[in-house]
Amino acid sequence: MTRPARSGPARPGPQPGDAMGLRSPRVRAARHLAKRSFRERDRLFLAEGPQAVREALAEEGVLTELFVTSQGRSRNPELAALASRQGAPVHEVSGEVMAELAQTITPQGLLAVCRFVDRPLADLVAASPRLVVVLANVRDPGNAGTVLRTADAAGAGGVVFAAASVDPYNSKCVRASAGSLFHLPVVSGHDLPAALATLRAAGLQILAADGSAASLLEAAGGPDLTRPTAWLFGNEAWGLPAELLTLADAVVGVPIYGRAESLNLAAAAAVCLYASARQLRAGPAS
Amino acid sequence: MTRPARSGPARPGPQPGDAMGLRSPRVRAARHLAKRSFRERDRLFLAEGPQAVREALAEEGVLTELFVTSQGRSRNPELAALASRQGAPVHEVSGEVMAELAQTITPQGLLAVCRFVDRPLADLVAASPRLVVVLANVRDPGNAGTVLRTADAAGAGGVVFAAASVDPYNSKCVRASAGSLFHLPVVSGHDLPAALATLRAAGLQILAADGSAASLLEAAGGPDLTRPTAWLFGNEAWGLPAELLTLADAVVGVPIYGRAESLNLAAAAAVCLYASARQLRAGPAS
Repeated sequence: MTRPARSGPARPGPQPGDAMGLRSPRVRAARHLAKRSFRERDRLFLAEGPQAVREALAEEGVLTELFVTSQGRSRNPELAALASRQGAPVHEVSGEVMAELAQTITPQGLLAVCRFVDRPLADLVAASPRLVVVLANVRDPGNAGTVLRTADAAGAGGVVFAAASVDPYNSKCVRASAGSLFHLPVVSGHDLPAALATLRAAGLQILAADGSAASLLEAAGGPDLTRPTAWLFGNEAWGLPAELLTLADAVVGVPIYGRAESLNLAAAAAVCLYASARQLRAGPAS
Repeated sequence: MTRPARSGPARPGPQPGDAMGLRSPRVRAARHLAKRSFRERDRLFLAEGPQAVREALAEEGVLTELFVTSQGRSRNPELAALASRQGAPVHEVSGEVMAELAQTITPQGLLAVCRFVDRPLADLVAASPRLVVVLANVRDPGNAGTVLRTADAAGAGGVVFAAASVDPYNSKCVRASAGSLFHLPVVSGHDLPAALATLRAAGLQILAADGSAASLLEAAGGPDLTRPTAWLFGNEAWGLPAELLTLADAVVGVPIYGRAESLNLAAAAAVCLYASARQLRAGPAS
């Protein structure tokens, strides 16, 4: 079942109002974007739901194609209209086709094909960020997307997906980011030691978050969070291996006041990033 | 296929070393505990993996039955031995049966049947907690379990599942709690207004977390976090409805420094609970 997407016998083109079927070349091409290899070949990804579509349309040239159900269009007529004004084809599809494309249990009737939005690390650094997140070996796309959303909320200047971390364009990561993938610079596929060296050269201290650290966040003897900081977060299950911890200026743990062994990645990142955000705003202690 | 679990023709009982099959009455009874109705009928639930089993065994009488694969037993011989010493039957099952029971993609070879561990609200209040979490309409079991784990890490004295929140014994909630379900008092099924009145009478201020709040966490004019606090968190998608907000002493938002619309529930809870934990330890400002 690998018919080439754009061949086959000549047929009349779709008429306005015709809903595209599962076998239509555009639908088939979009379905391929569920796979990382096709995303990387085409440098395109899928973003589902009105919030993500709205964010994608905020910068012209990001959204290349929009799939809508009739209900999705009638609920968000301004989004389909804006996509058209930006020159993006808008395809009406059935609920069944949308469910296939959206990979969610309750698709919201709008699905965008978008150009990759990641940028070179040099762009991120050029904006002199004071708070950056670096993900190393973060494998769960929901976790990565949640950290991206939290980094955005905390005012971070960018998120670097490094060292075999999940693809930021994975549909679960896009969904968990709740639009934040479009908000702040995302850097993907960068070598971790080189990325950390670049961030340090840009004046950021590198703090590795690790549950076993002797130094605790916001405790006496902990790192100075009023300094510009790149936070390094590791894998959900095994954290940061020793050779990555040595790349940081300090290793810092979130204090555990109760009987839990640790926090999960997204919660630890929220606590660390908000501690930094607050102290960066408060400025150095006199 | 609804053969009564404990009838059928007389057969010789299982011999030591026999692996139990999917049709064995014990396995069938345990499988039923995947459903809330059966859990509530028997006041029993399933906890999977060595960490959860270890926590369940920490207090005698919680674990009533242990299923192990041969690999699970050989990796954690002390857990199977301790279960036996506590008088709990230990059943050896195949990997296939474990996969059916554990409802995870990668079961870890150990699965406990446990007695419900929730307690009356009066017990929670009797310990004079200074930090409590109340969940209202939290529907995602992974979120609820993560908040439970974070509450434990932040040193909270209990978590109340109220107002149509998910069942704390849902397998995804148990898993996401990473053992914390066994660590701190959990109260389930309590009426929300009554629970808040009881907590207030015990000297806790009620703070409702809401993204649209005018008052911001740790900002000028925000609530005094050095006071004992019960944090009220609402539904993942729609937050707290107006009639619940009015039950709180104050409504508080986590500041958003970037372009994200909001934080997700687990991240917001982590930021709020750690702000409280830190300020409760620091004591009132002079």
